[in-house]
Amino acid sequence: MVGENPSASPDGLAGAALQSALSIAPFHAWLGLRVEDVNDGVLHLSMPWRDEIVSNPRIPSVHGGVLASLIDLAGMYVLLTRTRAVSATASLHVDYHRPASGGPLHVHARVVKIGRTLSVADSEVRSPDGVLLASGRGSYLMRDGGIAA
Amino acid sequence: MVGENPSASPDGLAGAALQSALSIAPFHAWLGLRVEDVNDGVLHLSMPWRDEIVSNPRIPSVHGGVLASLIDLAGMYVLLTRTRAVSATASLHVDYHRPASGGPLHVHARVVKIGRTLSVADSEVRSPDGVLLASGRGSYLMRDGGIAA
Amino acid sequence: MVGENPSASPDGLAGAALQSALSIAPFHAWLGLRVEDVNDGVLHLSMPWRDEIVSNPRIPSVHGGVLASLIDLAGMYVLLTRTRAVSATASLHVDYHRPASGGPLHVHARVVKIGRTLSVADSEVRSPDGVLLASGRGSYLMRDGGIAA
Amino acid sequence: MVGENPSASPDGLAGAALQSALSIAPFHAWLGLRVEDVNDGVLHLSMPWRDEIVSNPRIPSVHGGVLASLIDLAGMYVLLTRTRAVSATASLHVDYHRPASGGPLHVHARVVKIGRTLSVADSEVRSPDGVLLASGRGSYLMRDGGIAA
Repeated sequence: MVGENPSASPDGLAGAALQSALSIAPFHAWLGLRVEDVNDGVLHLSMPWRDEIVSNPRIPSVHGGVLASLIDLAGMYVLLTRTRAVSATASLHVDYHRPASGGPLHVHARVVKIGRTLSVADSEVRSPDGVLLASGRGSYLMRDGGIAA
Repeated sequence: MVGENPSASPDGLAGAALQSALSIAPFHAWLGLRVEDVNDGVLHLSMPWRDEIVSNPRIPSVHGGVLASLIDLAGMYVLLTRTRAVSATASLHVDYHRPASGGPLHVHARVVKIGRTLSVADSEVRSPDGVLLASGRGSYLMRDGGIAA
Repeated sequence: MVGENPSASPDGLAGAALQSALSIAPFHAWLGLRVEDVNDGVLHLSMPWRDEIVSNPRIPSVHGGVLASLIDLAGMYVLLTRTRAVSATASLHVDYHRPASGGPLHVHARVVKIGRTLSVADSEVRSPDGVLLASGRGSYLMRDGGIAA
Repeated sequence: MVGENPSASPDGLAGAALQSALSIAPFHAWLGLRVEDVNDGVLHLSMPWRDEIVSNPRIPSVHGGVLASLIDLAGMYVLLTRTRAVSATASLHVDYHRPASGGPLHVHARVVKIGRTLSVADSEVRSPDGVLLASGRGSYLMRDGGIAA
């Protein structure tokens, strides 16, 4: 079940440019996102704990919307490692498997399909010790028929 | 296309208790959520603007993860107005229709189905002047076979 | 929670032309679909029982894929009542609420958003006596920027 | 991005029992499904062409509902290779990548998560020459807290 076109692309973002693009978004800066690795069409990001991301303060567990944010943004950025033609999220689907009760959280995103109008990426959020907490997929609108700018 | 069991329920949260429950979550407090209205199985929440919710600072537009958060939490809380047996989000699906470029944002959630194991609610996020920005649905796990505690 | 642009459109399909377009698809003919009503952006279709649609022969219950088919096609055809620019299904999401154990099944679809690249419609499948069996949404690619042909 | 618990299970269906269980469903018999392989938590099914599955007779392309059916049932059966406690589909999400214009179609499903209440499986539908046509995920209700019967 390997994604298509898994090779690296000269049209995509990489290295310091990727971390820099990621951090332009104020919400990403607030989440404290860090690029851990990009390898063969798979992007690994991490997010540290911060108290404001909590939903249930008794557990305490991370809000489902924060986990959805990670799946949304990791999918977009793994596509951006391949082509800069990604424009905006069209839709997002998330399944929640277990409460996320500690940090840092790790997100692994992989390219499923790069299309002319829509591209798709799957992501997983895991605990510090690798337990699957949430997984899902984003579908993203492409600019100019998906041709890299 | 009316949801089931649209009548109010003595088992659900209402009024000040609803606003209070909503604000227990640190992430909800950070978002600044406010209960505007509950009427016949439809919950109306509002969220003020704050600069950290921005994704693209050039537009500036609200991060898709923040809109997903609104759809997730509004769906859970509209179910809680009917039964306290709602436990956790099982899955979330969001479609993004237009960039959200100003606040406050308004979320309207309605009950689709109250079940023993899973309940479903649909939500819409609208701009200050009523334009549809995002819509979607959450599916929620029920506690103790959905019997109100 | 009313869809946008609910008025009828001279660019869309109606009446006998709608039934005729629906029945061109061999799978639709096999399902025996019938247009019951189109009114103010809501399409009502019915599907009779046939033994091959069963998943669990002990109940017997309709296969989830058949219910997904109904939600997919009803969403596309309610959009076609408004604009002929609908091209293909981009994505489909379905929640199953109860087993469907008798026919005919009734599908009610409504327009959520007509966009330039993507349009969205919500649908519900109900039993002969009106019980909600499944609900969901399709997202559809538009042709030529959504301009009616 | 490996699924959890990938080892084979003595509680699951295998071999002739799996093909036999799959074919009990009249809709599966109509689709002509065949178990090609089960290996390490991945199920491979094939479906031959038949004219009634067509949506657009001019291409001709397989109806999106048929592709959704494949993703729904392949996800359920890959879970059944691991535990017989799978009960019913709770939700289904499908993305359509390219028209499916020839057969046989191949479906590859893998276990994402086996839970007490809900289990999740991802599936891909590919053309005879391996091109990705559709992909998606099903979420399935578990019986008796997911304990194998």
